Amino acid sequence: MLKLTSATALSAMAAGTAAAEDKTEQKSVRRYDLFEVSLKGPKDGNPFVEIQLAATFSLEHRSVTVDGFYDGDGTYKVRFMPDTLGEWTYTTSSNAAALNHQTGRLVCVAAKAGDHGPVGVRAMHHFAYADGTPYFPFGTTCYAWAHQGDALEEQTIATLRQSPFNKVRMCVFPKSYEYNHNEPEFYLFPRTAASSKENPLGGNDYTRFNPAFFAHFEKRLGQLRELNIEADLILFHPYDRWGYASMPAEVDERYLRYVVARFGAYRNVWWSLANEFDLMKAKTRQDFDRLLHFVQQSDPYQHLRSIHYSKVMYDYASPAVTHASLQTYDFNAAPGWLKLWNKPVVYDEAMYEGDLPSRWGNLSGEEMTRRFWLGVVSGCYVTHGETYLDRSLSPDQSATQKIWWASGGRLSGSSPSRIAFLRRLLEETTPDGLEALPEPYYLNAASPARGPQGVDRKASPAAILYYLDFHQPVEYAFPLGEGEYSAELIDPWQMTVTPVAGRFTGKATMTLTGKAFQAVRFRRV
Amino acid sequence: MLKLTSATALSAMAAGTAAAEDKTEQKSVRRYDLFEVSLKGPKDGNPFVEIQLAATFSLEHRSVTVDGFYDGDGTYKVRFMPDTLGEWTYTTSSNAAALNHQTGRLVCVAAKAGDHGPVGVRAMHHFAYADGTPYFPFGTTCYAWAHQGDALEEQTIATLRQSPFNKVRMCVFPKSYEYNHNEPEFYLFPRTAASSKENPLGGNDYTRFNPAFFAHFEKRLGQLRELNIEADLILFHPYDRWGYASMPAEVDERYLRYVVARFGAYRNVWWSLANEFDLMKAKTRQDFDRLLHFVQQSDPYQHLRSIHYSKVMYDYASPAVTHASLQTYDFNAAPGWLKLWNKPVVYDEAMYEGDLPSRWGNLSGEEMTRRFWLGVVSGCYVTHGETYLDRSLSPDQSATQKIWWASGGRLSGSSPSRIAFLRRLLEETTPDGLEALPEPYYLNAASPARGPQGVDRKASPAAILYYLDFHQPVEYAFPLGEGEYSAELIDPWQMTVTPVAGRFTGKATMTLTGKAFQAVRFRRV
Repeated sequence: MLKLTSATALSAMAAGTAAAEDKTEQKSVRRYDLFEVSLKGPKDGNPFVEIQLAATFSLEHRSVTVDGFYDGDGTYKVRFMPDTLGEWTYTTSSNAAALNHQTGRLVCVAAKAGDHGPVGVRAMHHFAYADGTPYFPFGTTCYAWAHQGDALEEQTIATLRQSPFNKVRMCVFPKSYEYNHNEPEFYLFPRTAASSKENPLGGNDYTRFNPAFFAHFEKRLGQLRELNIEADLILFHPYDRWGYASMPAEVDERYLRYVVARFGAYRNVWWSLANEFDLMKAKTRQDFDRLLHFVQQSDPYQHLRSIHYSKVMYDYASPAVTHASLQTYDFNAAPGWLKLWNKPVVYDEAMYEGDLPSRWGNLSGEEMTRRFWLGVVSGCYVTHGETYLDRSLSPDQSATQKIWWASGGRLSGSSPSRIAFLRRLLEETTPDGLEALPEPYYLNAASPARGPQGVDRKASPAAILYYLDFHQPVEYAFPLGEGEYSAELIDPWQMTVTPVAGRFTGKATMTLTGKAFQAVRFRRV
Repeated sequence: MLKLTSATALSAMAAGTAAAEDKTEQKSVRRYDLFEVSLKGPKDGNPFVEIQLAATFSLEHRSVTVDGFYDGDGTYKVRFMPDTLGEWTYTTSSNAAALNHQTGRLVCVAAKAGDHGPVGVRAMHHFAYADGTPYFPFGTTCYAWAHQGDALEEQTIATLRQSPFNKVRMCVFPKSYEYNHNEPEFYLFPRTAASSKENPLGGNDYTRFNPAFFAHFEKRLGQLRELNIEADLILFHPYDRWGYASMPAEVDERYLRYVVARFGAYRNVWWSLANEFDLMKAKTRQDFDRLLHFVQQSDPYQHLRSIHYSKVMYDYASPAVTHASLQTYDFNAAPGWLKLWNKPVVYDEAMYEGDLPSRWGNLSGEEMTRRFWLGVVSGCYVTHGETYLDRSLSPDQSATQKIWWASGGRLSGSSPSRIAFLRRLLEETTPDGLEALPEPYYLNAASPARGPQGVDRKASPAAILYYLDFHQPVEYAFPLGEGEYSAELIDPWQMTVTPVAGRFTGKATMTLTGKAFQAVRFRRV
């Protein structure tokens, strides 16, 4: 039986958290929201390393143990994202008496409309939210957007709100790379020295964390959560001048435990262990195996987990990763990889729309759009990035200008509207995701992963989406099997869907436009 | 010492042959032209299988033995293409007394201006004529053009004369496939029955050849030779309704020996053992190994030899092939293949410009052009094909309409003029062919295979050709090494070459157009 929640508790929930300082009061929290217990404890010494805190949340037969964390100033917190309706109880455990054996209750009530929970794998090659709602990742890349200061960060959020993107690849650490040399406002660890020629890493007190950094970062995570945008969190990356890319192993693990304890209860978090792991000179492949395993062991929610490479691919067959996170645009290889790994395949870096001198950052909008289509009809997913320079700036301004891919800000490219069109098209075509069709579907074609009657692949698919790529036939005999289909001509660039008169079945010849880069959708009637 | 040639002999030479019926008279033949000895011999029984004839041509220390052939009506011929200036003598050998120990002489005189001899491999990955003149294959595909009757065949020759193509992929056998169902005027073997339901192969007297077929085919070979167009002769193919694709092994070998004896003295002949060998159900891979070896053993001129596949690649490492003849458009794989095979790589089937329903026959002109550029800057070569249907025809006419790729005729696509532009550009850039440059040349780039000082790859190349493909940088720092270069912006589609002011060296940043599918050429000054 659920108790009615108080106005105060609802107000806390609206912010995505529910305070639980009064242990005797029963708090309410919406399903998939973040419940937080705040406790006062020791502030002497170094609580970050000396105090252990965990809590076990129980509902009927189930117990979920989560790590707590020290938030500075004698405050300790335990966060929990309940996934099951009903009354949960919890008990803390700690090596500090004040934090040990604290108990309380919370009632998990229905999720807010539109909140579907964390994303997981569904039907082997696809994704869905915890409540079963399909999730098709249409991501973008804003590596260091959360390290740019409030003005630009709020602009990025405003841009994302209007964008087609429901996933952002973003770094926990600040980034030091071309077009992104700014100092962040917050540092993960207390700084003991600025970087200098003699001490290029500057100084980090690796034994403590900076709660202000995390509070800021969590604000951004919460904003993305409000927008139903997944935060594909890059936990390590090589573009570093502060020492974060070359920390000792025990600091790496303390960092990961702290991150999982703080961020894990955000339903929109994914773990990307690294960007371009093979470019991180201070770490070996075995280090990443260990760190992936560490996150796998630490995360009570088993958020999606992957790792991204530059030249040397990670072994995505490993059970430590839930999906592949590729840097390539070889879509011909997709069928083999899907069969080999039996996991979703996300082309997280297929180059970016832009005009940079760098090879990876100067695709035309047409080519970026084409890669999204090729990915989708290959039964995979693709991530966007944008790398235009503002060439109206003076050379002085230009040196510090912000690019979407690195810093967020505004989008000016021509592909996002086309990606929005493709996303709508996919979502209205099938709730199940697409699987590439093999021959005799000579042109790139995909059909829903599971028809309404299940996974009978011999039955005529409920829908078939063809992408003609560089082919420009004036007519084509689409092999449709026995079902009866309606057809639409789709122009992915003009974003038009034009119904074709008649019904199609068997090997149906259709007149086409003779233009390249067109698509055709068949739906069973 | 050379004798002056008679007016009669010169006239015979102009037709590409020199009669040698009078054994005591010394004939003159231009280098790389076809010298022919005609002899009268037995016409009883079946001379095609019963009479053996060969001749050995000698010049100083060298002897070259060539097979003769029976041309019907008691006439036997021996053909020879001399490659060395001077007086050659010959002696025949035969199991027929009338053909045995016939002797004669010929004087090989200088080649006609513009005749450079047969094409061979040069500098591992490239081609040159026998006299050292570079040859860059820019081929087209007209499989059955020589089986279409005089009107269309003459039109094809007229089209080729105006085209950029210096190689034609063409079948010796007639072809039975989509858009190409006509009966040929000539058959290779005497027909003993038309094909019927009971006898789908019809009837061939496989023990005899039809000299009229060969005389006709040789007329076409000679016309191509006059145009300096290489005839890449496809010796077997699967598109057959006459029995040619499933002959007994001894017939295959008799056919090959006869073809080599008749065609081998045409300097413009290449041997392509098969088109899509892996689709020929009556033959195994081992059969083709054997047949390739047979041609290798039979051909006194060692014309270029390869074999073309559909899905299962031939082992181009085999010494039986002189170059790779690929069906793919995977240009990323080119560097590996070039290193693996140490031979020229020709993308003989990279799909065709056209508008057919078939996947392989509906590339845009832009995409066909793009594939030529990608091939060339990969250090390889590409073959064209065109597959447009004339949609102004009535359905009745349409059923038998002719398509360039199958039957020849006229070209109407947009890629040939761009291919002509690329060919001119390559020819004026380097006599040596291009080799792909590895990183740090991130964009597709190639430089001459050998600089003027030899093969020192560390030296600044004499020229560098960049193809930007789908990249649209507004500026790019081209790595040029230590040489000083002039630069030109090239638009492969607009066919413009625009000089860029200034000189470039080191890592030179150049302002570009921000358009995709552009190219840049640097030449050392």
